Amino acid sequence: MAIDAERHRERRDRVRALAASSLGTGRLLVTHLPNVRYLSGFSGSNAVLVLGPDAEADLIGTDGRYVDQVAQEAPDLPVLIDRDTLGAVISRLTRSGVPTAVEASLPVGDLPIVRDSVGDPVVAAGLVEQVRAVKDRDEIEDLAAACAITREALAILSGEMRVGATEVGLARRIEQLFGDLGAEDRAFDTIVGSGPHSAIPHHQPGRRALQQGDLVVVDCGARVNGYHADMTRTFVVAREPDAWQRDLHDAVQEAQQAATGAYRAGTPARDIDDAARSLLVGAGLGDRFTHGLGHGVGLEIHEAPMVGARSTGTLVADMVITVEPGAYLPGRGGVRIEDTLVVSDAAPRILTEAPRGLRVVG
Amino acid sequence: MAIDAERHRERRDRVRALAASSLGTGRLLVTHLPNVRYLSGFSGSNAVLVLGPDAEADLIGTDGRYVDQVAQEAPDLPVLIDRDTLGAVISRLTRSGVPTAVEASLPVGDLPIVRDSVGDPVVAAGLVEQVRAVKDRDEIEDLAAACAITREALAILSGEMRVGATEVGLARRIEQLFGDLGAEDRAFDTIVGSGPHSAIPHHQPGRRALQQGDLVVVDCGARVNGYHADMTRTFVVAREPDAWQRDLHDAVQEAQQAATGAYRAGTPARDIDDAARSLLVGAGLGDRFTHGLGHGVGLEIHEAPMVGARSTGTLVADMVITVEPGAYLPGRGGVRIEDTLVVSDAAPRILTEAPRGLRVVG
Repeated sequence: MAIDAERHRERRDRVRALAASSLGTGRLLVTHLPNVRYLSGFSGSNAVLVLGPDAEADLIGTDGRYVDQVAQEAPDLPVLIDRDTLGAVISRLTRSGVPTAVEASLPVGDLPIVRDSVGDPVVAAGLVEQVRAVKDRDEIEDLAAACAITREALAILSGEMRVGATEVGLARRIEQLFGDLGAEDRAFDTIVGSGPHSAIPHHQPGRRALQQGDLVVVDCGARVNGYHADMTRTFVVAREPDAWQRDLHDAVQEAQQAATGAYRAGTPARDIDDAARSLLVGAGLGDRFTHGLGHGVGLEIHEAPMVGARSTGTLVADMVITVEPGAYLPGRGGVRIEDTLVVSDAAPRILTEAPRGLRVVG
Repeated sequence: MAIDAERHRERRDRVRALAASSLGTGRLLVTHLPNVRYLSGFSGSNAVLVLGPDAEADLIGTDGRYVDQVAQEAPDLPVLIDRDTLGAVISRLTRSGVPTAVEASLPVGDLPIVRDSVGDPVVAAGLVEQVRAVKDRDEIEDLAAACAITREALAILSGEMRVGATEVGLARRIEQLFGDLGAEDRAFDTIVGSGPHSAIPHHQPGRRALQQGDLVVVDCGARVNGYHADMTRTFVVAREPDAWQRDLHDAVQEAQQAATGAYRAGTPARDIDDAARSLLVGAGLGDRFTHGLGHGVGLEIHEAPMVGARSTGTLVADMVITVEPGAYLPGRGGVRIEDTLVVSDAAPRILTEAPRGLRVVG
């Protein structure tokens, strides 16, 4: 979907106001590429965006590869084309009385050129990310489209999972289905963990072939217009699950359901994590749930807000967040169930709605 | 292939010596993940490596997700496990008389914690990268394996390219072939640009279907043990090429051949670029060759050395570099031909050896 220039200008104004109130300056050098895309529409791989302090001073820099693309994607912004993009952009800034803020991810190697031109910068940590955490309608439509493709592809893949199929073969197959169904690419490196590998939360798919009785965790997502889906289901291969597999899956599924019910605007993120974690602790699996409960998704696969035991924030309507408890028994197998959902004042909207039970495949 | 701990220790000693001579300190905080992997063997997604100043002070930090993996991949290093990895590692450093160097890619947001503990750091730009540019035997074997898979997959794909196939479908298909042939994953986002899209050097594959008479640029690579292949061929769809297509391809192919012949230890990188560029200028295509000639490949898809018109370095035996001239006619079509090769004192070893002529497919 085309997002118009007006929307990007509104976003810049919102960030500018937030920078002025929280950092004492409305002049911000935006270098983190997802932030540049969010505030300008430009999706190239090299860009520096200057915000203000007034809208008239907004400016985007990139290099010669992107002359046409930047004009098309960010039609309302003055453009500076230079191979040394950061240097060229900074040379346009004046040593006015206005301090310059930089993003926390700016490499220290780029600090001298900033200092030489505008003095010691203020460091802005998570400023644009904070605004990005709450999605607008167009963003939710793109996320919903990416999630719809993901759940459809996963349904097809589950019908193709057989004894003898390799993890890496299944991972590439679902990415092909994403493309067939209209996605531009995968949202992240697909995880397919089978048998003992299902107990490794971030297992890289390898040559292992599915065996009868394996648990298989498939964690995947499609990307649409730059927006990332994230979804996980766990399967068992070619026979009814053993009792321990069913018990493990039941515990995770109950935790996932409880946490999903707890996602609501105004709730502290820590409480959501606790809704799942307390059930897993009660099931004797507290030390087997080794990661946080969820994270925001949008122009990045992991973005604000994080939902975990140490989170300090509170949920806001139209945040889009995953809910993904898991439990992992090293050497035996693991289970994770994950959905992407939209926070609201009532029950969340689940973008990856699909059966969650432990399904026998193959 | 398993690379033994001894090799990683040798690499650390080499970097330590280089840091001591060029930065005046042998204590370096390594945070760029490919550098951590090169110097320790650890391939996780969160790591901080401390070098020296003596080998006894070497230390690697990561978090609880990687307890087993770091012990397996970096068996000779003391390990620190902490969710706040950088903070925990830095708290172990002493304010000795030895200055601490950090990598240029360290985020400015991490600077205060370094300063508070060990004072103002020295910034090391490209130090580990300089050592990584020259490959050892094990690395060249992995690169050769990745390139062999790439050329085999591209040969299969070219037999499957048909009128009506979409760019995104072909991109996902070759990535599936990489997996079938033994790669762990793609080395980078596969580029398939058809018709007018072939004139966009970094085109993201979309829904466009191949049409008779299209030029199609396929730029792709497999990854094996973390090592990246890079290869490009250009095809024409379902009919003999038009004269302009043949002329464009001939010019690029001649430039590619001339540059390949020029790759030799001791040659300035700029001269290699010029070997290709001068031929394209002579063919009236100087302003259509809009990027550099090549780049190093290894644990990253783009790494030192860069080979372009402004390069200042000189080639060294066992550097592994691409040679990829192109010419792009906006709105009509483009051609790029790319190989990955190993520099030597004689003719380079071409790891992606395969026919380069303009092949009719479909």
